[in-house]
Amino acid sequence: MAVTAFHEDSEAFCPNFQRAIELIGSRWTGAVIRALRSGLFRFSDLTTNIPGLSDRMLSERLKELEAEGIVSRIVIPETPVKVEYHLTEKGKALERVMTEVADWAERWVAEPQAAASG
Amino acid sequence: MAVTAFHEDSEAFCPNFQRAIELIGSRWTGAVIRALRSGLFRFSDLTTNIPGLSDRMLSERLKELEAEGIVSRIVIPETPVKVEYHLTEKGKALERVMTEVADWAERWVAEPQAAASG
Repeated sequence: MAVTAFHEDSEAFCPNFQRAIELIGSRWTGAVIRALRSGLFRFSDLTTNIPGLSDRMLSERLKELEAEGIVSRIVIPETPVKVEYHLTEKGKALERVMTEVADWAERWVAEPQAAASG
Repeated sequence: MAVTAFHEDSEAFCPNFQRAIELIGSRWTGAVIRALRSGLFRFSDLTTNIPGLSDRMLSERLKELEAEGIVSRIVIPETPVKVEYHLTEKGKALERVMTEVADWAERWVAEPQAAASG
């Protein structure tokens, strides 16, 4: 009778939860959202600040995040035209998720080089 | 001068954060951790309760989570021998991440069928 905790959650499996966590955790997405939160709004700011992220991958990720309603692409009509990417309300609502992941990472995740050898 | 928020974070990019979020968000991992939290400790409980998760994928995921120190494999010396998977302290420490993701999903993530057509 080890299944005592089962009824704590009304459902063990929730498709929206799975969709959300895989979306947030997909390759580079966390880093992009984190950078946008930090005020890096321009394409080149993002590639410069996220080591290993190619233009092509960033472009794909931003399109996905736009399609999900997490990021909006804003064209600023200056000369030359400026394009910025900003978190929407839905994207900003990830604040607490991001904070909790950062806290957990700080406490529990080893430096990448150490972990990579394990 | 749009970069006003930049210095709120000491670093826009953090490898441990990226590692953590991609680990948690990798395919099926969120669902497996969620199920373990709910008291589904046995291999067959997990495949039964996570639609679409094959034995092979679950086996891979559990090995990864063991290697990361998030899950421990416990052999109970009964007849027949019983094997259970439990969250370690590191895994249990994901509680608040999971709760925040679930809250965000509930508020912001559409039903999969609706989102898939968007």
